[in-house]
Amino acid sequence: MLLRLKKGLPQRQLDAVLAEARGFGYECKFLDEGRQLLALSGAPGRPEHRSRFEDLVGVASVLDAGDARERHERAPGRPDHVVRAAGAVFGGGVASLIAGPCAVEDVTRVKEIAKRVQAQGATLLRGGAYKPRTSPYSFQGLGRAGLEMLAEVRAEVGIGIVTEVMDPREVEATCEVADMLQIGARSMSSSPLLLEVGKAGKPVLLKRGFGATVREFLLAAEYLLSTGNEDVVLCERGVRGFDSGVTRNLLDVGAVAHLKRATHLPVVVDPSHAAGRADLVRPLARAGIVAGADGLIVEVHPRPAEAHSDGAQAISVDELAQVAADMRALLDLDERCFATQGLERASA
Amino acid sequence: MLLRLKKGLPQRQLDAVLAEARGFGYECKFLDEGRQLLALSGAPGRPEHRSRFEDLVGVASVLDAGDARERHERAPGRPDHVVRAAGAVFGGGVASLIAGPCAVEDVTRVKEIAKRVQAQGATLLRGGAYKPRTSPYSFQGLGRAGLEMLAEVRAEVGIGIVTEVMDPREVEATCEVADMLQIGARSMSSSPLLLEVGKAGKPVLLKRGFGATVREFLLAAEYLLSTGNEDVVLCERGVRGFDSGVTRNLLDVGAVAHLKRATHLPVVVDPSHAAGRADLVRPLARAGIVAGADGLIVEVHPRPAEAHSDGAQAISVDELAQVAADMRALLDLDERCFATQGLERASA
Amino acid sequence: MLLRLKKGLPQRQLDAVLAEARGFGYECKFLDEGRQLLALSGAPGRPEHRSRFEDLVGVASVLDAGDARERHERAPGRPDHVVRAAGAVFGGGVASLIAGPCAVEDVTRVKEIAKRVQAQGATLLRGGAYKPRTSPYSFQGLGRAGLEMLAEVRAEVGIGIVTEVMDPREVEATCEVADMLQIGARSMSSSPLLLEVGKAGKPVLLKRGFGATVREFLLAAEYLLSTGNEDVVLCERGVRGFDSGVTRNLLDVGAVAHLKRATHLPVVVDPSHAAGRADLVRPLARAGIVAGADGLIVEVHPRPAEAHSDGAQAISVDELAQVAADMRALLDLDERCFATQGLERASA
Amino acid sequence: MLLRLKKGLPQRQLDAVLAEARGFGYECKFLDEGRQLLALSGAPGRPEHRSRFEDLVGVASVLDAGDARERHERAPGRPDHVVRAAGAVFGGGVASLIAGPCAVEDVTRVKEIAKRVQAQGATLLRGGAYKPRTSPYSFQGLGRAGLEMLAEVRAEVGIGIVTEVMDPREVEATCEVADMLQIGARSMSSSPLLLEVGKAGKPVLLKRGFGATVREFLLAAEYLLSTGNEDVVLCERGVRGFDSGVTRNLLDVGAVAHLKRATHLPVVVDPSHAAGRADLVRPLARAGIVAGADGLIVEVHPRPAEAHSDGAQAISVDELAQVAADMRALLDLDERCFATQGLERASA
Repeated sequence: MLLRLKKGLPQRQLDAVLAEARGFGYECKFLDEGRQLLALSGAPGRPEHRSRFEDLVGVASVLDAGDARERHERAPGRPDHVVRAAGAVFGGGVASLIAGPCAVEDVTRVKEIAKRVQAQGATLLRGGAYKPRTSPYSFQGLGRAGLEMLAEVRAEVGIGIVTEVMDPREVEATCEVADMLQIGARSMSSSPLLLEVGKAGKPVLLKRGFGATVREFLLAAEYLLSTGNEDVVLCERGVRGFDSGVTRNLLDVGAVAHLKRATHLPVVVDPSHAAGRADLVRPLARAGIVAGADGLIVEVHPRPAEAHSDGAQAISVDELAQVAADMRALLDLDERCFATQGLERASA
Repeated sequence: MLLRLKKGLPQRQLDAVLAEARGFGYECKFLDEGRQLLALSGAPGRPEHRSRFEDLVGVASVLDAGDARERHERAPGRPDHVVRAAGAVFGGGVASLIAGPCAVEDVTRVKEIAKRVQAQGATLLRGGAYKPRTSPYSFQGLGRAGLEMLAEVRAEVGIGIVTEVMDPREVEATCEVADMLQIGARSMSSSPLLLEVGKAGKPVLLKRGFGATVREFLLAAEYLLSTGNEDVVLCERGVRGFDSGVTRNLLDVGAVAHLKRATHLPVVVDPSHAAGRADLVRPLARAGIVAGADGLIVEVHPRPAEAHSDGAQAISVDELAQVAADMRALLDLDERCFATQGLERASA
Repeated sequence: MLLRLKKGLPQRQLDAVLAEARGFGYECKFLDEGRQLLALSGAPGRPEHRSRFEDLVGVASVLDAGDARERHERAPGRPDHVVRAAGAVFGGGVASLIAGPCAVEDVTRVKEIAKRVQAQGATLLRGGAYKPRTSPYSFQGLGRAGLEMLAEVRAEVGIGIVTEVMDPREVEATCEVADMLQIGARSMSSSPLLLEVGKAGKPVLLKRGFGATVREFLLAAEYLLSTGNEDVVLCERGVRGFDSGVTRNLLDVGAVAHLKRATHLPVVVDPSHAAGRADLVRPLARAGIVAGADGLIVEVHPRPAEAHSDGAQAISVDELAQVAADMRALLDLDERCFATQGLERASA
Repeated sequence: MLLRLKKGLPQRQLDAVLAEARGFGYECKFLDEGRQLLALSGAPGRPEHRSRFEDLVGVASVLDAGDARERHERAPGRPDHVVRAAGAVFGGGVASLIAGPCAVEDVTRVKEIAKRVQAQGATLLRGGAYKPRTSPYSFQGLGRAGLEMLAEVRAEVGIGIVTEVMDPREVEATCEVADMLQIGARSMSSSPLLLEVGKAGKPVLLKRGFGATVREFLLAAEYLLSTGNEDVVLCERGVRGFDSGVTRNLLDVGAVAHLKRATHLPVVVDPSHAAGRADLVRPLARAGIVAGADGLIVEVHPRPAEAHSDGAQAISVDELAQVAADMRALLDLDERCFATQGLERASA
């Protein structure tokens, strides 16, 4: 490991760094006369050491983490980790479509949507029983009743379910229904939730916080991975920019392309939350796929005018058909596949 | 209430808006020929209605919320709501100093810090038993053992305690120790946590998320207020900007000044997290006070070199003395007071 | 036109608004009792009026600009405005590839690059004689000598030239060489330069400022259009975000898709400046095309290691071949064309 | 100088770095086995070298610039550089107030404002003859006629003039009137303008671009300094944030405090453009002064309702009196002085 110390470090701070390094079993050697470059050797690097050094006030930066690889890091030559949930497959040249309403409001309607998005190739239904809302006066989702509706839809339609969990106390109940647990953008930094969800053992869809750097996003995934759960799918859904007049968020397609290189975990794109408006969902979905995404998660509503949340960004089922057709054509260009088998066929 | 509808609204979307409005008991009248401006009258406005209209796909914006005032909004002429916690007083022309280490690491040292910050006028000790960390490999705090240490310090030193809670399952245990519960920047949007903390009935220090707008910040406070708990102190701690080379975050002094006008809730400033470096804590503390803040929360460590988290931004007790002296002088200029009575005196 | 006035407007401010409106020939009528909604009628709306009202302190916003259409706005049903420069065609279902080095450094090498990018289908060569650099100590381009080199390359290779002009005093000299004038991101808001370039009558490539909103970008184009020059191509090249660790800028693909709807002007994407790293140029180029861009501008260098500026983001000619192949395939999916005729053939 | 090279550098890129270093006269020595840390010695460091290395594709970063100090950098122990313009003094414990209208519109009114702001202690009048506007349809200033008005005001009232120049062709004419030339936020990155203004030899007020990092701001100053002109005053006027609902820009008080440490150049704050609303000018002005600013530049208008630009953020002369009183009191706390001598007295 190679540390860069701060310039003109007081002796006490220097001693604190050296003591810590020796405590971990490293030998210390300064590379330069100015005693700013400190090489550590003689012990296997561990990410805990790296974090500790990053926290120390005397350390400017960890220039080289050596062999202290974090779990999300793609080792040289390592292929994609493939995550499967119900009939969906993410990674390894296969992409899946997740679609559904923002919130679960009415069981009959959700069934209708589920059948129709399944007919377009969606292998997972999205739909919130618990909705994170900015205002306490907005519709918060139906909670447990919403989960029961999702269970009914799953049983009847034979489509997998991905649904958000916000409260660590609800993880167990949500697991009874969901094929994949979603951690929303606003919860990305909640370590108690990450740990509880990780331990549940189900595949996880982790959304990037709208104010989170890519490094913070990957370290949130690392919380999940640290529980031993490897089935984490990263979701880029747009970050907050300075121009709120055009799109709700800025879809970070560069991050999608970067993530495909930096980690072996699959990446999906949420064009609906990025756009915040229905007419831009299709172009953003296309952009996500050609940048390398292993799937899409799209908000669909048969009658957006009546939706209790996020109606402005929901597309119709006809529009979803276009998105799915684009997705197939673009995957085809890259010799990648579109996962189409449903829940029943997957479990057959 | 006055709504602005989207241009060229399909009949179905228009009908959905009118049906919703009539369902709330309003009479509807279009003000313009283009049928974009819809005035609602005949029923008392409620914030739930406002939120519902903001969610509807056909509504471009709520131009005037009428009498649908939210709980955080300062009614014309309403004085500050004053929040008291142990010996601290926030608002109504009185400001308080909160100081202490980032994390609770060692009971002897915390006691030492507590005594020394109390001697400088701090009426609340800050210190984390649960630390929200970006990396799972970083020090996460001592948890329950940390809470016990804080209880011991509180009993022996006679200083109030403010400490962060991240997990709704830990609210009860934290309440046994804390005079004030802190909700951290990364948890600002966690509605399950906000509701659980609100119901606990203790004063709350709510930090602004580093990617949150002022409106989102105020609506997070509204979650707390909606539980009937009125003792909410808002904390501005810097927002994420595009230049990470100078300060860790951008202290939004304009938001401090705005909040003092927009809400009756007290506002404090955290110059430590905004600066991310010890040498800029003092100027940012000064800026916060003259912009109208009702207090400061400052990270202090007797030996920053040895801190397990955030050592780079912790100031020494001598530097805290300067901050406290500045605070007194600047409050004095505005004929405001510095709260100095400690826990024992407050309870005497 | 429909204005929303500020709440509780002092009489003097109200009078100022009414006087201005009447001075423009409008009749004024308040739509609501609160006298906040002011409808103006009886005179044709003009963008100058809109701007004036937006400037007035009493006006909260111009809710509806009525018939005061700005020149860049796409009238309903209006087809793309097609811009031609040398052999390049932008818009109307045709897309072009611009490629070349960051800066013009050596005439032999530029000729070699020109021939090789032309062979890949590029119809315009990019290359800076004047380079906007952050530091005065960085290479600033060869100036007039660089322009002469470009003239020589143009004559010998038969490829069109697009090159940046930063100084209004250099517009005339640059016009002698360039088929298209580029206004760089840092100059986007320089009205003296915009007006001078607009008047020169050549097609213009206008880059979006990295801190500019889409509205500001379109109004910069409006300066060009206001001179009577209609041949403006908009270039999205990434905006500044909060995470500088992954890409140099955030490619705003949502803005690309939005611009194709909001204006009839063509839009191209610069994946090189957005990425800031060679390995992400290809995925960003793809994303731009599928979002609707009418072309790409890409930095190419045969030996990036030796470039005097922006070497890190320059791709090799082999990599350009991949980008061009992607571009053809993706345009084909949308039944759009790739413009391939060079300068000689165009003028033949 | 100490360079950190990229990991796994191809031989060609490594050779390019070594050739460049040797060309500058340095001896090269690798400090580590991985050949990533390259120490250069044996020749005096120059900022041109640093810039060149930063541009090279093989260099990850310049870890230590050695003795290659840039002109704006504050050498250890170096006192403030004091800039004087008419009666204004910036730096060295002295602060000045600049006030005036956004644009020069009417000579009688400007004289009135000039007298009234002078009476409050302003030693420089601000006022634009050339106005950078987002829209070509907005009022662009009176140009040369505006400059003539300023000359008349200067002669009659005896107050110094600071006015913006946007076009390098107008520098000479502007110098005839102005005691200090202003470079606006949108022109900060225009090197032709910076060089032309620098060479004019007058003191310069350089505003930070709203999307510029502090490093970019300092390098823009470096363009001015590189002409031999040392009289540069830096102006922080707020940067673009993600929340446009509260203030127009985010005043970066942390940057003010940082700049006072990093450079010997004086720093002033523009609370008017940061706030974008009159009621927050005063708290932001206060925050700027206590963070260390050497002065303020404030927009004042006797009748904001009638202003042709930026009326919403202009304060009245009475409000300016409060700002000036605050400024005196806060400077006094720090044992700093408020410059009050006017033009005539200064030249007496």
